[in-house]
Amino acid sequence: MIKIICKISIPFESEKNLKYNVRASSVMHGLLMEKISSDFAEKMHKDSLRPFSQYVRFEKGKNIWTVSAVGQQACENIIVPLMNLKNAYIKYKHDNILFSEAEILKLSYDELLRNNYIETEKYISRIINIITPAAFKSSGNYVILPTLRLIFLSLARKFDNAFGIVNNNYEILAEETEKNISVSDYKLSSASFSVEGVKIPSFSGYINFRISGDTSFKSYVSMLCNFAEYSGIGIKNALGMGQVFSEIKEC
Amino acid sequence: MIKIICKISIPFESEKNLKYNVRASSVMHGLLMEKISSDFAEKMHKDSLRPFSQYVRFEKGKNIWTVSAVGQQACENIIVPLMNLKNAYIKYKHDNILFSEAEILKLSYDELLRNNYIETEKYISRIINIITPAAFKSSGNYVILPTLRLIFLSLARKFDNAFGIVNNNYEILAEETEKNISVSDYKLSSASFSVEGVKIPSFSGYINFRISGDTSFKSYVSMLCNFAEYSGIGIKNALGMGQVFSEIKEC
Repeated sequence: MIKIICKISIPFESEKNLKYNVRASSVMHGLLMEKISSDFAEKMHKDSLRPFSQYVRFEKGKNIWTVSAVGQQACENIIVPLMNLKNAYIKYKHDNILFSEAEILKLSYDELLRNNYIETEKYISRIINIITPAAFKSSGNYVILPTLRLIFLSLARKFDNAFGIVNNNYEILAEETEKNISVSDYKLSSASFSVEGVKIPSFSGYINFRISGDTSFKSYVSMLCNFAEYSGIGIKNALGMGQVFSEIKEC
Repeated sequence: MIKIICKISIPFESEKNLKYNVRASSVMHGLLMEKISSDFAEKMHKDSLRPFSQYVRFEKGKNIWTVSAVGQQACENIIVPLMNLKNAYIKYKHDNILFSEAEILKLSYDELLRNNYIETEKYISRIINIITPAAFKSSGNYVILPTLRLIFLSLARKFDNAFGIVNNNYEILAEETEKNISVSDYKLSSASFSVEGVKIPSFSGYINFRISGDTSFKSYVSMLCNFAEYSGIGIKNALGMGQVFSEIKEC
């Protein structure tokens, strides 16, 4: 497996002049599944894997569809088929959409590590902006008031799944998270997100983290936040939930 | 010890026409300490107890100072001296204030239990409105993104301290909380609160809880929420932090 993550952003116009905001993301999931080969769709189903996330937004007068994939197979089977899309019919909205030129971002595992290497001995600040409603599951229940443990342990698990890492000690990570990460500033509120008419309890907003500890821990957490921009946080990322932007501030 | 909690709310006018909002609460702490006998102040200091909370707010064109006390001794030594206050000089603001008639609420331990007895087999909803910035401390650090565990275990400890209950099993309570309380709806954000020029990291907003489990657990949690209206939540309630209103909705 070549360790790689990809993101494609495709602006599009709606024939009906519709604005596709984040709540339309689950509609775009249908289109994505049409474009993926049935072999690969079957494989994902069999392996119970969702090595991608996607969402749509209306920003600066434009509809933009963004799809991210983790791992070479997912990049080849999910991102490549979207590269030269010209148009599509969105059944749910009875709308034709016309795609413009796509922007593609490719990042290797090594680049992800290198880009997030933190040298400073001081603490760092990193913000996570939650741009589509997010939710976690814990003991079978939806959780909409996130904890540091839920955010970073679930990100670590996503990362490890994506890159085939099997020897992570999540209990030690939980302790380090408790000890070295604090929330310096935030604004969060419950939100609603519907998937095929079913409301999923969720939340949105932003959280600013203060991360201390040794340089390797700070680098690791910073990398998880960067990775989250591809994987999403929490559940149902393939349907548009939990998409985030993250920025680092050295202090 | 007679098991009782009291709350006094005293409207007042400012000679300088100042509005005393919640951020002025720590200023009122000084006035309160002037009114308490030095013997009782000494006793609180020696026992490291703060059996009261207080805050000030400007609401509907009126300044209102509210002080709550838990336990008969605290009610007698803190609330009674405030009952017939006529005026006071607020040094920090170089302001004279004139008190109007006080409103007093008294609740016995038995009334607190009886008022919060939940009969329904269904879940109940209870909201906590955080009206002055709140914060928790955990392992020596400020925590401004609250967890259910922090909220309810710290309330249980306050309640047990207030009423001399010594045999509570907090680990079982933590498990029950995890199992039976969820957040159905909220809006929270970091806030700032200064105590004598020192900024205390804090948060404000509201949280709506959905509480299930047997009737005794629902009654207990409902009572803790009611008690919180007197004790406050989290730290520095004597200086004005963590004051809440709570309402129940049977579902």
